[in-house]
Amino acid sequence: MAPRALDYESLNENVKKVQYAVRGELYLRASELQKEGKKIIFTNVGNPHALGQKPLTFPRQVVALCQAPFLLDDPNVGLLFPADAIAKAKHYLAMTTGGLGWSVEGAYSDSRGMPGVRKEVANFIERRDGYPSDPELIFLTDGASKGVMQILNTIIRGESDGVLVPVPQYPLYSAAISLFGGSLVPYYLEETENWGLDVNNLRQSVAQARYKGITVKAMVIINPGNPTGQCLSEANLREILRFCYQENLALLGDEVYQQNIYQDERPFLSARKVLMGMGPPMSKEVQLVSFHTVSKGYWGECGQRGGYFEMTNIPPKTVDEIYKVASVSLSPNVPAQIFMGLMVNPLKPGDISYEQFIRESKGILESLRRRARMMTDGFNSCKNVICNFTEGAMYSFPQIRLPPKAMEAAKKAGKVPDVFYCLKLLEATGISTVPGSGFGQKEGVFHLRTTILPAEEEMPEIMASFKKFNDEFMEQYDDRGGYSRL
Amino acid sequence: MAPRALDYESLNENVKKVQYAVRGELYLRASELQKEGKKIIFTNVGNPHALGQKPLTFPRQVVALCQAPFLLDDPNVGLLFPADAIAKAKHYLAMTTGGLGWSVEGAYSDSRGMPGVRKEVANFIERRDGYPSDPELIFLTDGASKGVMQILNTIIRGESDGVLVPVPQYPLYSAAISLFGGSLVPYYLEETENWGLDVNNLRQSVAQARYKGITVKAMVIINPGNPTGQCLSEANLREILRFCYQENLALLGDEVYQQNIYQDERPFLSARKVLMGMGPPMSKEVQLVSFHTVSKGYWGECGQRGGYFEMTNIPPKTVDEIYKVASVSLSPNVPAQIFMGLMVNPLKPGDISYEQFIRESKGILESLRRRARMMTDGFNSCKNVICNFTEGAMYSFPQIRLPPKAMEAAKKAGKVPDVFYCLKLLEATGISTVPGSGFGQKEGVFHLRTTILPAEEEMPEIMASFKKFNDEFMEQYDDRGGYSRL
Repeated sequence: MAPRALDYESLNENVKKVQYAVRGELYLRASELQKEGKKIIFTNVGNPHALGQKPLTFPRQVVALCQAPFLLDDPNVGLLFPADAIAKAKHYLAMTTGGLGWSVEGAYSDSRGMPGVRKEVANFIERRDGYPSDPELIFLTDGASKGVMQILNTIIRGESDGVLVPVPQYPLYSAAISLFGGSLVPYYLEETENWGLDVNNLRQSVAQARYKGITVKAMVIINPGNPTGQCLSEANLREILRFCYQENLALLGDEVYQQNIYQDERPFLSARKVLMGMGPPMSKEVQLVSFHTVSKGYWGECGQRGGYFEMTNIPPKTVDEIYKVASVSLSPNVPAQIFMGLMVNPLKPGDISYEQFIRESKGILESLRRRARMMTDGFNSCKNVICNFTEGAMYSFPQIRLPPKAMEAAKKAGKVPDVFYCLKLLEATGISTVPGSGFGQKEGVFHLRTTILPAEEEMPEIMASFKKFNDEFMEQYDDRGGYSRL
Repeated sequence: MAPRALDYESLNENVKKVQYAVRGELYLRASELQKEGKKIIFTNVGNPHALGQKPLTFPRQVVALCQAPFLLDDPNVGLLFPADAIAKAKHYLAMTTGGLGWSVEGAYSDSRGMPGVRKEVANFIERRDGYPSDPELIFLTDGASKGVMQILNTIIRGESDGVLVPVPQYPLYSAAISLFGGSLVPYYLEETENWGLDVNNLRQSVAQARYKGITVKAMVIINPGNPTGQCLSEANLREILRFCYQENLALLGDEVYQQNIYQDERPFLSARKVLMGMGPPMSKEVQLVSFHTVSKGYWGECGQRGGYFEMTNIPPKTVDEIYKVASVSLSPNVPAQIFMGLMVNPLKPGDISYEQFIRESKGILESLRRRARMMTDGFNSCKNVICNFTEGAMYSFPQIRLPPKAMEAAKKAGKVPDVFYCLKLLEATGISTVPGSGFGQKEGVFHLRTTILPAEEEMPEIMASFKKFNDEFMEQYDDRGGYSRL
C-alpha cells in the first residue's frame, strides 16, 4: 500500500531536516527519568520560573485584573490589589476596541497587537536609544521566536537563499532556516577571544557561500549571546552594520537578553541605536529587524509568550506583506501584550508598588550576576573544562576537553561525544544540559550549554555534583594526551 | 542598486501569494473610517467579545488566580473569589513542573502543552464520542489556526502536493497552502442544497487535480461550516471518510464551531466518532487530525489564543516530527492552556458557580440562535438577496444578486463586484463585512460574509440599516435582467 499523507515517508523533507537540540534527545531522556521519579535539574531551557524564580508581583496583579475586570466593580478589590495595579488595569482595559472593558483579553486584537501597547514599545525604544521609533513598524508576537520565524519565512525563497548565523548559535535559527528551505551560512565566534565576532570571518563565510551559488540575504546577531554569553561592543556593532551595508544584507538583531548584563564594561547597546548614530546613508539604508521578549530579563514570563519586533528601513509594501501574513493567525495572545506594555513602561519612583518592584527586579538581576560568576568559576575548577565568563544572557557554555578514550566510548555507543558526556552527566547527577553539537562548534571541539538559572542556594551543590561527575569521568577515560581542544 | 533583502521585489513569492480577506481591503478601510470617528460594526471576524459578549465569569476567575497565585495566601481571597474557583486554580497550579505554584503561567510548558490539560482534553473527547482518546496524541496550540498551519506545513512538500478545500472556505486554508507553496484543490459546496457536500464533486476535483499532475494528499472539512454555516450529517461524514480511505487522503477536521449549533435535526458529530464507528479497516487506517479552540462556542475567548489538535492513526515517527517542530517555538501560551482545560472539563451540578455558569453560557447560546434566525430572515427580506439558514458556526453568507449596471460600475472602479458592494455598504452603514470573493464562490455569483455576533438588541437596527442600503443600491443600479445568480 502507498504511504499515507502523514506517514513519515510522505512528510515535508524540510520538516524532517529541522533540528532543535534544546528539546532534543537530552530533554526527552530527562523527562523520562523525571517520570521514573529521579530529581532533574532542567537547565536546558532558559525558563526561570520553572527553576524557582518568582514572578514580579505588580505585572501579575495587573494582568489578573485584566482577566477578571468584574473585580474592578467589587468594593473589596482594594483589599487584594494596590491602587496602582487597579489604575494600570483600567489603562489597558481602556485600550480595547469600542471601550468594552471585558473584551481586552477576550477579543482578537489587531494582528500587529494593540495600538496602545505598540505606542508604549515605541516610547521605550525612543527613551533607550535616543532616536524616535514608529509604532506602525512594531509588531507584537507570541514570543520572540514567532517573530524570528515570520521574518525568516518572509526572506527565504529557497535553498539558494542564505542567512549568516553565528556558530555557536541558538538553534531556533538553524531550525527555522531548515523549515523554510533556506541555507544556513555559518560564521564562527572566537572562543579564545571571549566569543568575539571577527568581521574577517564574516567576509570569508560570505565569499564561500557565494562561491557555492548562494545569495546571502541576511545576517543574524544574538546580543547578548546565546549560548555564548558575550556582549557586543559598539565598535563591533559598527563593523557589523557597515558589513551589512556593503554586502547588502538585512540584519536580524536578537536582543532578547538586553536586560541580562553581568559586567559593567560593555552595557547593552541596541543595533538600532548604533545604526542611527552612524548617520546617512547607512542609517537610511540598512534593513534591520530587532527582537525582544517578556520571557527573559528579570521578568522571565516565558509561559505568557509575549514578544515584539521592530522594523527599520523596511519599505511600506513589505510591512504590508508582513501584516497580511500575521493576520492569518489573527492576533498574538492579548495577556502577553499587556505584559509587554508593563515591561516597557514600568513603575516610576513615587508609585505605590515601586519599591517592591525594584526590590524584586534588582534581587533577581543581582542574583543572576552572582550565579553567572559561580558557574564560570565552578566550571573552570573542573578537570579539562574551560569556560568564558557569562557577560550577559542566561547561559554558560564551557568547553569540555574529552580524552580519546571517551570519544571512542562515545563512538561505540553510537553517540556524538558531547551527547555521550551530557547523557552520562544526566544519569549521574540529574543535571539536564544541551550538548554543544546542538548549537554548532568547531570540528573536534566539544561543549555543553547550561542555564545559570538554578536557585542560588542550590548552585554550590549543583556545581559540586557537576565537578564530582566530571572529574571522575576524566579519571575513568584518562589518557596520555590527544584530548579534544581548540 | 540591487534590491535589499526586505524590499518587496526580494521577498518570498509564497508570502506575496497569500490572501486573507478577513483582514483585507474591507477591514483596512473600516479601520481607517473608525479612526476618522465613524461608528463601525465589525462583523468581519468571529470575535464575540469585541462586539459586546461578556466572558464567562468562572474561567476568568480561575485564570486570574493562576496569574496571581499569591492571592491564594491572602486571607481576603474569599471575598473576591468563590471557593470552587480557588480550588480549580490550585488544581492547575499543581500541574506545574516541580510543584512551583507561581510557575504555571510564567514557565514554558512542554511544547505539546501541559500533560494534565491534555489528559482533560482526552477525557472530554472520550465522553463526547464514546471512544478512548490518547493524551499523547493531543497537542495544545496558540489557537486552532496555528495547529492547522503546522499540520499543513508538515504535509505539503511543494506545489505538486494538493489539499482539497471546500469553496466557499475559511481563508486560513488558502492562505496557509499558499504560504507553504502547495496547491489548493477546490471542491464546491452546493448553495442550492443548503451548502451540502456532494461526494461526486469531490471525485471530480481529485480527478482534475491528478490530471494536472497534482498529488492530492489531504482534505479539509469545516463542520459546522465557515462561512456557510451548514452542519454535516452522519451519512455525509461517512461518505467523506470512505472517500478519504479510498483515495488515501488525510482528513483535517476543523471542528471549532462544535458548540455553535442552532437547529436540532443535525447535532454536531465529530469526524472521529463517525470514523471509529465505521470499524476496521477504516477506523485503523484513515489519518485524521481534528481541531478545536477556546475562541468560539459560548466561550469566545479569541484573545487568549488557545486551541488543540488531536491526531488519529498518525504513526509515532510522524508525531515525533510534529513534536520537534512545535518545540522550536517552545510552548503554546500557558493561560490559554488553562482556559482549554476549563472548557473541556466544565463545572458540574452542585458546584457553587454552576448555576451562574449555566445561566451565562445558555444565555449566550440561545441569543446566538435567535440572532442566526434574525439575520437569515433579515437578508431574505432584502431585494436580490437570498440566504441559507445558519445551522451552526457564527456566520451568515447571503448571496447578493447584482444587476449588470452595478457590475459595470464595479469594473469602472477597478473592484471585484462584491468588494464594490461591501465597500459601499461599509461607507453607507458602518457595517464591516467580508466579500464572498475572499472565501471563493462559483464564477459570476456574489456573496458577503457577516458574523451573527452583533448584540441582539442592536440586530433589528443593523438589519434595517442593511436593508435600506441594499434596496437603495438595487434601485440605483436597477436593470431589466441579467442579474448575477446561480
